[in-house]
Amino acid sequence: MPHRRTVDEHAGRVAALVGPPLARQEAETVPLAGALGRVTIEPISTVGPLPPFRNAQMDGYAARASEIRRTPVVLPVDGVQPAAASPARVLPAGHLLKVMTGAPVPDGADCVVPVEQTVEEDGGVRVLRAVEPGAFVREAGSDALPGTVVVPAYTRLAPRHLAAAAAAGVAVVPVRRRPRVAVIATGAEVVPPGAPLALGQVHDVNGVVLGALAEEAGAETVSVDLTPDEPAAFERALARAVEIADLVLTAGGVSKGDFEVVRQVLEPLGADVTEIAMQPGGPQGTASVRGVPVVCLPGNPVSAQVSFTVFLRPLLRGAVGLPPVHAVPLPLAAAVHSPRGKRQWLRGVVRDGVVYPVGGPGSHLVVAMAGADVLIDVPAEADFVAAGSTVSVLPL
Amino acid sequence: MPHRRTVDEHAGRVAALVGPPLARQEAETVPLAGALGRVTIEPISTVGPLPPFRNAQMDGYAARASEIRRTPVVLPVDGVQPAAASPARVLPAGHLLKVMTGAPVPDGADCVVPVEQTVEEDGGVRVLRAVEPGAFVREAGSDALPGTVVVPAYTRLAPRHLAAAAAAGVAVVPVRRRPRVAVIATGAEVVPPGAPLALGQVHDVNGVVLGALAEEAGAETVSVDLTPDEPAAFERALARAVEIADLVLTAGGVSKGDFEVVRQVLEPLGADVTEIAMQPGGPQGTASVRGVPVVCLPGNPVSAQVSFTVFLRPLLRGAVGLPPVHAVPLPLAAAVHSPRGKRQWLRGVVRDGVVYPVGGPGSHLVVAMAGADVLIDVPAEADFVAAGSTVSVLPL
Repeated sequence: MPHRRTVDEHAGRVAALVGPPLARQEAETVPLAGALGRVTIEPISTVGPLPPFRNAQMDGYAARASEIRRTPVVLPVDGVQPAAASPARVLPAGHLLKVMTGAPVPDGADCVVPVEQTVEEDGGVRVLRAVEPGAFVREAGSDALPGTVVVPAYTRLAPRHLAAAAAAGVAVVPVRRRPRVAVIATGAEVVPPGAPLALGQVHDVNGVVLGALAEEAGAETVSVDLTPDEPAAFERALARAVEIADLVLTAGGVSKGDFEVVRQVLEPLGADVTEIAMQPGGPQGTASVRGVPVVCLPGNPVSAQVSFTVFLRPLLRGAVGLPPVHAVPLPLAAAVHSPRGKRQWLRGVVRDGVVYPVGGPGSHLVVAMAGADVLIDVPAEADFVAAGSTVSVLPL
Repeated sequence: MPHRRTVDEHAGRVAALVGPPLARQEAETVPLAGALGRVTIEPISTVGPLPPFRNAQMDGYAARASEIRRTPVVLPVDGVQPAAASPARVLPAGHLLKVMTGAPVPDGADCVVPVEQTVEEDGGVRVLRAVEPGAFVREAGSDALPGTVVVPAYTRLAPRHLAAAAAAGVAVVPVRRRPRVAVIATGAEVVPPGAPLALGQVHDVNGVVLGALAEEAGAETVSVDLTPDEPAAFERALARAVEIADLVLTAGGVSKGDFEVVRQVLEPLGADVTEIAMQPGGPQGTASVRGVPVVCLPGNPVSAQVSFTVFLRPLLRGAVGLPPVHAVPLPLAAAVHSPRGKRQWLRGVVRDGVVYPVGGPGSHLVVAMAGADVLIDVPAEADFVAAGSTVSVLPL
């Protein structure tokens, strides 16, 4: 048997093809209201201080602390300052100024007496308890000085980051553009979701699931095409896809049958189509069409999902700044057999820190895969792994 | 000091107001391509078997195992069966039928010989190695029998669930409708994102962050309004909001100042507006306007975020089937002081399993909150928590 490329070798090829164009993704600018979950490409900083002006922390009275040191004391009130646009004002000596929470504290005042510590009287307000200088005053810049980074570059924007950006006066944020992914599922037997089936036909799974996997990995799925096994139809779909996408994923048509449309069209364009030492997911390919990377996945729906997860998920998540999904070592609940020479990704579920294989190895077991939550990574050199052994488990 | 309502008491009131209408959310039907992350409200089941027909697992030749028991053997080939819509056919005795992966296996055949184990010859194909009955044949129903639940009710749809639904012939799925949330941020001092500021003015934070928090919790933010402290303007915004939303959130206007628009408008309609024993986030309210729940949050942006996280996040996530965010016990890196009688939610960051308070207790520290990843829950009865103590920590 000829040497088959290993999973790591193929992963390296896919990364070399897909990584650089995704890393060159230009920025786009989005309003704050549409920026949740996007990733900043530069720091967001304050221009002025935050808060932008000295303001009251409580509803109450702005005062000079030195004038209310002995209580009770009654002082006249020089009007009211709501929280609103206001001319700058000065607190006259021997006076109070009624202030609402968030209102500018007038020059001259150095504290705010909470309304609960006062009583209104004829001719003024009685202050019942003194407060210290600075009490209940939020100084300008006490949250952030001018030029402070409030959200670092490469931050996935959570609501609290949007809050800080909004406070800093930012209305739009430059974020990484989401990679645009086009999916082309091939196969004469494939019909659209829900259509009636003749003998020999199956419903499209790959278009649906690869589109969803790309979205889940942070990309934008810009088209999903189904094409029969006719080179001209696939060529047309491919020509459209490379016009609108940063990455094209194909499913099917890369195996050893007589009607392998992806192989037939792409090999003359220099595609690398091969069998790799992996199960499910042996037939794989890569190509570059008019500068756009094309990654060719096998057509069995389980193989396509596993291949996406192993080869493409890390690259797309990395490109949009999502954290990597790390494999974890876990004990195996039941022994498994594996074809020697192929790295096998069995579907499994994790319960109480132990991983149980589910379904069988068949790449048509789409329902069994829906019930899985991890892939169990069985090394190529193993043909048997005993129950209780520690295996590497990749969360789905 | 009068008894202030506790956090748990207020949480109970908010849940009693908001929970039942959200639990009554009707279903909506979405196509598979738009169903990622949505939550099913009923099981998705197969009608027929999966695979729908017996098919070839490999490219090769359908055969009768009994006729190829002694190898090598040369048999004539009765044509080719691609993976495509086909009339049912029968394998003539003493023949092979060339089949592509996924193609129907003809009646009479009970195995598939992989193409790699054969050689084409004049007058037929030489089978080099025998295979067992059943080899490389996927039986109809081997993934799922008719009537099998492929995705349970109340499943948050991951790509692999969409794959199983697609395979089962489902084109649209009934999912919970996302609760529609309208946000009304109040305050004469609040200007839209990015607008220039006069003295006394600040940029809207609450509209931005409450809209984003609702989206993050699985809801759909259908409107964000900013209104000045004028009852008529707030009434107009409220009238619009209750027309289009399942839940209205207001920010600000529930405190003790002279311009408390939310309190002024809603108290005559039976609103419950009160101070609760919590910091930040003392002033809180609830109301029902034309049958639509209205939850009134304080206007300080940190208070508003904390209040949403404590009172509303669990309800919205529960309504759309997102898993709860659980508090975890962690050791505290540095001592904290807290006002006795108020449950305090300090902002913190977790590093190496230890929680560090960040920023101060001030409810205007929006930038400090952006750098936090948890809330530290300091009980109402504590006025001091020593470094090294175990505290309850709520992830943001």
